[in-house]
Amino acid sequence: MKLKSSKSKNIIFLLLIMFSFSCTKTTEKTNNDVKGEDSHPSLILTAKGVKDIRAQLGNIPIFDNSLQVVKEEIDAEIASGIEVPIPKDYSGGYTHVRHKRNWVVLQKAGVLYQILNDEKYAKYVKDMLMQYEAMYRTLPLHPKTRSYARGKLFWQCLNDANWLVYVSQAYDCIYNYLSEEERNKLETNLFKPFADHISVDSPQFYQRVHNHSTWGNAAVGMIGLVMNDEELIDRALYGIKDLKLDTEEKDDDGGFLNKDGKAGFLANIEEPFSPDGYYNEGPYYQRYAMYPFLVFAEGLHNVKPDLKIFEYKEGVLLKSINALLNLSDADGDFFPLNDGQKGMSYYNDALVTAVDISYHFGTQDAGLLTIASEQNKVLLDDSGLAVALGIKNGKAKPFDKKSINLSDGPEGKQGGVAILRNKDIELVFKYASQGSSHGHYDKLSYSLYEKGDEVIQDYGLARFVNIEQKGGGNYLKENKTWAKQTIAHNTVTQNETSHYNGEYEIGSQNHPDLHYFSSDNKSVQVSSAKVANTYPNTDMQRTLAVIKDEDFEKPFVLDIMQVISNKANQYDFPYYFLGQVLNTNFEYTIPKTLKPLGSKNGYQHLFVEGNGKSKESNAKFSWLNKGKFYTLSTISDTKDEILFTRIGANDSEFNLRREAAIMFRRKNTKNTLFVSAIEAHGSYSPVSESAINSKSNIKELKVVIDTADYTALAITTLNGSSKIFITANTNASNEAKHTLKINNKNYTWVGSYYYK
Amino acid sequence: MKLKSSKSKNIIFLLLIMFSFSCTKTTEKTNNDVKGEDSHPSLILTAKGVKDIRAQLGNIPIFDNSLQVVKEEIDAEIASGIEVPIPKDYSGGYTHVRHKRNWVVLQKAGVLYQILNDEKYAKYVKDMLMQYEAMYRTLPLHPKTRSYARGKLFWQCLNDANWLVYVSQAYDCIYNYLSEEERNKLETNLFKPFADHISVDSPQFYQRVHNHSTWGNAAVGMIGLVMNDEELIDRALYGIKDLKLDTEEKDDDGGFLNKDGKAGFLANIEEPFSPDGYYNEGPYYQRYAMYPFLVFAEGLHNVKPDLKIFEYKEGVLLKSINALLNLSDADGDFFPLNDGQKGMSYYNDALVTAVDISYHFGTQDAGLLTIASEQNKVLLDDSGLAVALGIKNGKAKPFDKKSINLSDGPEGKQGGVAILRNKDIELVFKYASQGSSHGHYDKLSYSLYEKGDEVIQDYGLARFVNIEQKGGGNYLKENKTWAKQTIAHNTVTQNETSHYNGEYEIGSQNHPDLHYFSSDNKSVQVSSAKVANTYPNTDMQRTLAVIKDEDFEKPFVLDIMQVISNKANQYDFPYYFLGQVLNTNFEYTIPKTLKPLGSKNGYQHLFVEGNGKSKESNAKFSWLNKGKFYTLSTISDTKDEILFTRIGANDSEFNLRREAAIMFRRKNTKNTLFVSAIEAHGSYSPVSESAINSKSNIKELKVVIDTADYTALAITTLNGSSKIFITANTNASNEAKHTLKINNKNYTWVGSYYYK
Repeated sequence: MKLKSSKSKNIIFLLLIMFSFSCTKTTEKTNNDVKGEDSHPSLILTAKGVKDIRAQLGNIPIFDNSLQVVKEEIDAEIASGIEVPIPKDYSGGYTHVRHKRNWVVLQKAGVLYQILNDEKYAKYVKDMLMQYEAMYRTLPLHPKTRSYARGKLFWQCLNDANWLVYVSQAYDCIYNYLSEEERNKLETNLFKPFADHISVDSPQFYQRVHNHSTWGNAAVGMIGLVMNDEELIDRALYGIKDLKLDTEEKDDDGGFLNKDGKAGFLANIEEPFSPDGYYNEGPYYQRYAMYPFLVFAEGLHNVKPDLKIFEYKEGVLLKSINALLNLSDADGDFFPLNDGQKGMSYYNDALVTAVDISYHFGTQDAGLLTIASEQNKVLLDDSGLAVALGIKNGKAKPFDKKSINLSDGPEGKQGGVAILRNKDIELVFKYASQGSSHGHYDKLSYSLYEKGDEVIQDYGLARFVNIEQKGGGNYLKENKTWAKQTIAHNTVTQNETSHYNGEYEIGSQNHPDLHYFSSDNKSVQVSSAKVANTYPNTDMQRTLAVIKDEDFEKPFVLDIMQVISNKANQYDFPYYFLGQVLNTNFEYTIPKTLKPLGSKNGYQHLFVEGNGKSKESNAKFSWLNKGKFYTLSTISDTKDEILFTRIGANDSEFNLRREAAIMFRRKNTKNTLFVSAIEAHGSYSPVSESAINSKSNIKELKVVIDTADYTALAITTLNGSSKIFITANTNASNEAKHTLKINNKNYTWVGSYYYK
Repeated sequence: MKLKSSKSKNIIFLLLIMFSFSCTKTTEKTNNDVKGEDSHPSLILTAKGVKDIRAQLGNIPIFDNSLQVVKEEIDAEIASGIEVPIPKDYSGGYTHVRHKRNWVVLQKAGVLYQILNDEKYAKYVKDMLMQYEAMYRTLPLHPKTRSYARGKLFWQCLNDANWLVYVSQAYDCIYNYLSEEERNKLETNLFKPFADHISVDSPQFYQRVHNHSTWGNAAVGMIGLVMNDEELIDRALYGIKDLKLDTEEKDDDGGFLNKDGKAGFLANIEEPFSPDGYYNEGPYYQRYAMYPFLVFAEGLHNVKPDLKIFEYKEGVLLKSINALLNLSDADGDFFPLNDGQKGMSYYNDALVTAVDISYHFGTQDAGLLTIASEQNKVLLDDSGLAVALGIKNGKAKPFDKKSINLSDGPEGKQGGVAILRNKDIELVFKYASQGSSHGHYDKLSYSLYEKGDEVIQDYGLARFVNIEQKGGGNYLKENKTWAKQTIAHNTVTQNETSHYNGEYEIGSQNHPDLHYFSSDNKSVQVSSAKVANTYPNTDMQRTLAVIKDEDFEKPFVLDIMQVISNKANQYDFPYYFLGQVLNTNFEYTIPKTLKPLGSKNGYQHLFVEGNGKSKESNAKFSWLNKGKFYTLSTISDTKDEILFTRIGANDSEFNLRREAAIMFRRKNTKNTLFVSAIEAHGSYSPVSESAINSKSNIKELKVVIDTADYTALAITTLNGSSKIFITANTNASNEAKHTLKINNKNYTWVGSYYYK
């Protein structure tokens, strides 16, 4: 590492520097000195950028529109007056909402001052900051006690850090507008103690690798950049100096506070991002974490170009934006892996930041311009200008999402997420590591989408973010009792116990491994992964293929799950389909009263709505969702119990959605194989009332070989044509040569799988 | 009536006429005689219209586009060849779908022949008709036996009639193209016996007032118009001559086959339409019935102008289109009153017909052009040309849906439907009569919408129309056991028994009456209706108001239900809210196992998910649906049981949607009053994660007076302001003067209600 800060500088010395710097500034301001003009703003706007923007104004439609929206918003705020209430509430409550609103308003007003050169915005920012200064100097800890790290403006430090990340930008924008005395007052009574509270005073929040800490680091670093405070900048980049925390302590979510002692912004880049840019908590939290990563990086890029922050770890910050965009469905909604709230999408403002910064500081990918156009908004800064000019000059091209494998882990060796895309079908195969405190116990699970609609769902989190009536807007107890449990996911649960016994410590020490990922043949997209230790002496391997075959209207999914265990177990294998049951080829009975399926590990939240057995070689189940038909064909054992379940038992506050699953239960079994196909087919319109291709095209799905080295299926369609799919269970490299005899016919191929 | 057909003409005489007419035609065709050109086409296209269309082609965008779409569709069909399979399947099955497709294709190909003057289309129609002719002459009844009136091409006569309504148009279009011999062959072996089968051979289908019969009448009449067969035309207009049916017999849906002996197209206009144009079965079936009403009317208008069909019953056909368009929500989806399938909307092709015909033959309402633009499609006929020219000439204006009261009954004296519209809120108050065999037992029920999203739902029907896997696409048994029952609706059920004891005979003899409807004050929209005899010795009156008050962000609903009974009863009063429970101000418990609420009358389909009691004067319940918040505030008796229910018990084939209600149960009570307010408030975005105005603004709702003459409520908001709403229970005319003393204050007003 090149960057080596002089951590020995003491605060008095720093203050002296600051003072002299500020004095110079004041003079400069009056004299319109170029150097002074140049040094602020410097975080997201630069002096040169501001000049360019002003020169282009009126001539860059998406920028002009974004500016107009912000101007109207802020003018209305200015008209309604400043409110800086004494902190009191949890998320969703009045004081919380107001302070949250204020950080947005301050940031935007600061930017408006720079772009429009209208002092009313600077004055507004100054006036509000002064009210914060007056309040903050005597402000005690926030009265609400639920957080592991209480803030002062908010019930949790995290929100205080959010505030400072935004407000640093506002301060940067009006820095030159303020007098030295005003700056002193703000820095001494507000910004410096604020930065200290969320860092040295709250090490359990600040000193770790976690999205919370990233906000903390960025907040401290950004205000450090504005104040030119090297100590704060160092604290931001490397963590609190010489601090050791108890490595066994846990946070509210059950995550370790600081297991390996790493901390600071660079560690927060290093640890959670894989070399492919996958963020270990998943896209929902990546979206949340992106903003501080990127705006602080932008500031560092501008003020400390030698750090080459955008090249850090082989450019992982920009790679992560590409990964994040690929972790969204056809509508731009992020896949709700781990604790993800559904509906969060790349229309979120954090993604406007991500897309604009990625375009400006990256390789000017024309696909990003299309997303920016859809967002219909750009940042009011240098990067937003670049995007606006790109769009204006007609450079936009479609952002083409293809199949992609994203490794997980700091070195890309802790599993990953494979997204198989084939026409309108998207399959999200999660073989990632624990995902920090926001992880779910769902190894080798997957979810399925068609045209942005969930077909086989991942439940996501159990939380109504920022809706105060629901547990203060925080995680609900059902997040632990239901959403994180294995049975809440489309994977195998053994003996009604979650993976890793539902224990974070064990989960964190283990992860699946990619077996292979193959997307070269655009008609046949396949991925396979293995995991050991989810259960004692049990190995699982799942192979998923999305195949477009000429005999089928749409791509179909093959799902092969192998379980190897040294003792007899019960296996439960659910499919959380969304939509309305159409029919089955097996008989089932419905109970007169609904009872919970079990008493713990998520089972206590499932009602049993039906119970059947299949007499056929394939159990078939069709459903209708959002005007599209689906059929699950599962190779069934006559002893398999087929359960229809519905979420909602023991849900005393109606926190869970009443959604359904079909579940295959296989008892008293050691090694076993679950094989299914899922077809998407046809459509139904309630307007024309026409049902097109409403039936399955699969006559039979059959295992034709299953050895340690190979598993092969025959897929026979209604018109009698038959295809063979063979997956290599061991030697599955792209170059591996295989010859296999099945029913006296030789199959020879090179690569991971065979399909013909 | 002017039109008096010579019913004494016998068939031989008719045939002679036809022959001679046809001979003339053939000659004319060759000679390009003007009269011959003029007499065909004559149903939806006229010779003059065809000339005008041809002259405008290429210059009328929406028409040109519609034509292009149809041309591509039909060219593809022609390329794939003709299929006329032997009938075999129920709805959704292959032969059903194919014959259904054929009627569409034939009609369109005929129209293309006229407009494009390309013989390939005429030849295609002729060839397919000849295949039908070859098959039909020996075709037995359809093999499926479920219908009360089996067809030949389809399992039910109804679909045969659909076929003929469309195919008559195709025949009309190629009439002049065919030789006399070809016409003879088709008419003798196909059209005449076809018309006879669905009429004289199926009187239980044909000879009644019912949407099925309307199709039958139109089919017979349209082919009669093309064939110039006065006997068929008479049979269409007046029913089968001298036929008497058993007035006690019932159809598959439980409706009387022909209780009062009325029949024929004119009776089918007379009976089901009220003077306001409300169709007694509701909008879903009106949409279905509209097409034959309108295309046959169009044909009659062209061929029999003296009949003045569009002026019949004071222009009710065109009025009915306006009524139908007003029976849709903000998205154009029809309110699912009675047996209505959700999602059916004015984008349905029948509504393209309705809108175009209404524009052309009506008063050229500019609002219709906007709907036509949204439909993005016009009829390829004279009326479509008129609409296309209107749009092209910039005449379109918004179709402004206001509050509207639609009377029900042939003379408008059998109740009705009131739609209260106030900003984005729509309330559909159903106080209509039984609604024929498709009626539900839901007197004084209502449903609530915001911006086209259901808030308090009407369940609609229990059927998956045309989805063969679900009961052949027909009505499911749960339509009777659940969807029609009173407890499935937002109204009062007494003693767990449906209105009129769930008996069609009693339901058909009774109906509610409008008390008042007041929409003059755009901030306060109110309607009130009464009903007797839903239960023995019980009267009910419901008053619903949608009020926009300055103290509220959005309009709120007041709901006042009075029940007067001479003995003690149990009353159940559900609200079928859609969305996720947020919170309540009362405590409730959830059961460990879910049991059905009852054993019959719909109660067997409801699970009890929660049970509470309110200690406060108002029980409050908030929920979140599609990003919008709602709160129900109900004046509660401490003895009221508050139940959370969910649909789905005893649903052995998963035919019902698992949706919820909150239900107030009041036991052992004679007269009583249920009073509630429903507020729509705020919004939630999963993208910005901001919850705006998520809480109720009502501090208390209180009854301040309740007498035989008046019921008055005080609505107090959180900021302490209080308003009074008084409804006149007796003398409620617009001119009525009222003075009332409440808590020593005098209230004086003129009209049905007071609000201030």
